[in-house]
Amino acid sequence: MAERRIYADNAATTAVSDAALSAMLPYFKECYGNPSATHSFGTEAKRGLEEARSTVARALGARVNEIYFTSGGTESDNWALYAAAELRKKKGSHIVITEIEHSAVYRTAKEMEKKGFDITFLPVDREGHVTPEQLEDAIRDNTVLVSIMMANNEIGTILPIRELCAVARKRGVLFHTDAVQAAGHIPVDAVGLGVDMLSVSGHKFGGPKGVGALYVNLRTVVPPMIIGGGQEKGRRSGTSNVPGAVGMAAALEDAVLHMGENAQKIAILRDRLISGVLQLPQAELTGDPVHRLPGLASFVFSGVEGEVLVSLLNEAGICVSSGSACSAGSGEPSRVLKAAGYDGTSASAAIRFSLSENNTSDDVTYILAQLPFILEKAKTIKFTARDLDFDGD
Amino acid sequence: MAERRIYADNAATTAVSDAALSAMLPYFKECYGNPSATHSFGTEAKRGLEEARSTVARALGARVNEIYFTSGGTESDNWALYAAAELRKKKGSHIVITEIEHSAVYRTAKEMEKKGFDITFLPVDREGHVTPEQLEDAIRDNTVLVSIMMANNEIGTILPIRELCAVARKRGVLFHTDAVQAAGHIPVDAVGLGVDMLSVSGHKFGGPKGVGALYVNLRTVVPPMIIGGGQEKGRRSGTSNVPGAVGMAAALEDAVLHMGENAQKIAILRDRLISGVLQLPQAELTGDPVHRLPGLASFVFSGVEGEVLVSLLNEAGICVSSGSACSAGSGEPSRVLKAAGYDGTSASAAIRFSLSENNTSDDVTYILAQLPFILEKAKTIKFTARDLDFDGD
Repeated sequence: MAERRIYADNAATTAVSDAALSAMLPYFKECYGNPSATHSFGTEAKRGLEEARSTVARALGARVNEIYFTSGGTESDNWALYAAAELRKKKGSHIVITEIEHSAVYRTAKEMEKKGFDITFLPVDREGHVTPEQLEDAIRDNTVLVSIMMANNEIGTILPIRELCAVARKRGVLFHTDAVQAAGHIPVDAVGLGVDMLSVSGHKFGGPKGVGALYVNLRTVVPPMIIGGGQEKGRRSGTSNVPGAVGMAAALEDAVLHMGENAQKIAILRDRLISGVLQLPQAELTGDPVHRLPGLASFVFSGVEGEVLVSLLNEAGICVSSGSACSAGSGEPSRVLKAAGYDGTSASAAIRFSLSENNTSDDVTYILAQLPFILEKAKTIKFTARDLDFDGD
Repeated sequence: MAERRIYADNAATTAVSDAALSAMLPYFKECYGNPSATHSFGTEAKRGLEEARSTVARALGARVNEIYFTSGGTESDNWALYAAAELRKKKGSHIVITEIEHSAVYRTAKEMEKKGFDITFLPVDREGHVTPEQLEDAIRDNTVLVSIMMANNEIGTILPIRELCAVARKRGVLFHTDAVQAAGHIPVDAVGLGVDMLSVSGHKFGGPKGVGALYVNLRTVVPPMIIGGGQEKGRRSGTSNVPGAVGMAAALEDAVLHMGENAQKIAILRDRLISGVLQLPQAELTGDPVHRLPGLASFVFSGVEGEVLVSLLNEAGICVSSGSACSAGSGEPSRVLKAAGYDGTSASAAIRFSLSENNTSDDVTYILAQLPFILEKAKTIKFTARDLDFDGD
């Protein structure tokens, strides 16, 4: 193990922030009641839960009764697709997504396709963009939902959700955005964007794992995907994860409060990293060079394999993911990079650095010092696919 | 507020145990990696997750690769019904449950009924029992699933799952049991019971809220309900809730280790409570007087309303639920008690005490001392339904 360990995989998950952990702690052993109970323990828990809901709403530019807590971004995404399909089933069964959606949307859509849904997968350009015109052309009379992510988890490109949403709204089509990588990192104004549904995940901005939310605009009445005791106004059953919701809310509030300074600090580190890496002859930056997440820098390196690079970087104490985040360990080329026009070799040769406010200038210096040697070594090693679980940032 | 506060609502949720909290803590800010990542932070998290899986498996009499982590009992129950329906859709669409299942099964079945499934709701006797003969008669050639709970959350009756499951197995029908109230409190031996699927929830035995598990027997290959990055061997996507899983595992291990002594201690308290309450002329114990959960004692009181009683008990510092746990605050009579043959008045007049190892003999003394006065007062008050969320133990 290297002496030094640098965590640069914040798009996969983040450390729980101090604000989040200290907010959560009282709800484990003191205010541990079930918020649905009417006694004092229940009331205390309910108060914590509802304060968390207000905080999350405020941070996302939403009204308090537009926030539903879930178990995470994946559940939120699944729910959004399920809900739209159910709500509009009389209208049709056509859904529009992009080729670069997160697996929680992409694979769910693929499963729906097997069940008779008609899915349009919008192609993207090399930077990961789709245009309002493309969307306009794709929408049909029987389209029930458009789902386009706010920022891509592999290449960091930020998509023009407001403009894309306007196209869908004009045609009376529900619009969902997966804002899992965006929330807490770039401004998210759910009402201002005009979206019907928006997914977030607690552990991407310093909250705990196992909690997320789905924003649902007041005009949209979604059916529940998980049914039972009727929590979350009947829309999402299961005993509310009070510490989770409280922790997510504290983390998001903190992230939004410090977004300006953090984004600036992180983007400076990112840009130094990008400049340094691009000095290397075999490196290419992926995604939009300007409209990108503050902490995300993903590269393809010709002549090496991403998984080998991840492994060698790890030996040097640098923790990153391969670009093909959704098939970590499998050696498969990245679906996102292939959609962006990279060939199979390049799409297998990506690594993603994702920085947070916990990273330092020294971290970048260290990475840039190590990378040339690691790249040289990587060229000599052939990757053997290991039998690992998939990744799921 | 009363000087003293007694928490006697452990069937709704429990305080997180010391074992669980100390096991969880390192996974928030130190070993916070995404277990799907292949670097050292990911590996640490993966190790924690897989050790948790082994622990849960051992505690439930299961093999390690039969445990899938979920967001809680409700998701596990929903998944079991969804999975069976998908798996056996060529065989038919008939499902058998009981009238006293938890809402996570009962209401899900009701929703499936609207979508064309044929549901048989087995009636129960006054103690909450169904017999293997009843089940035998209910199973048809097109039956795809039987789902019967191991122990009821309102009346505490323990059902003969091994015998019921044998009937289903003999007929080639999948069997699921909701063991949410059982796990950690009475022995659960998944393989020994012969069930195909079994649901547990972390926060019912000293684990955190927001995490649960579905046991799925090796012979059964269930399709996923939540789709995305392919975690949990593709069966349940979404970044794994590592601290949640670790906390649940530590709590369950602790609960199973001390089950004998705790159950004995709690049952002594419960039986003293039952004897004392039954001295009151208007009280009747619900559920099976012998085969019941160690901590659960639920009563109906003629001439009072359960919600009024809960409220007055709370004023005296005694925190319990009304018997109608799934409609707390609504004033609706309990579906479970009505199924057990209680009339609407009695079914609205229930309260449930659920004790844990944290309760003391003094707690019971205090409850028994307060109850006669509270009952007298309750007779004079008419309940007004409040607009509260449903409960969802």
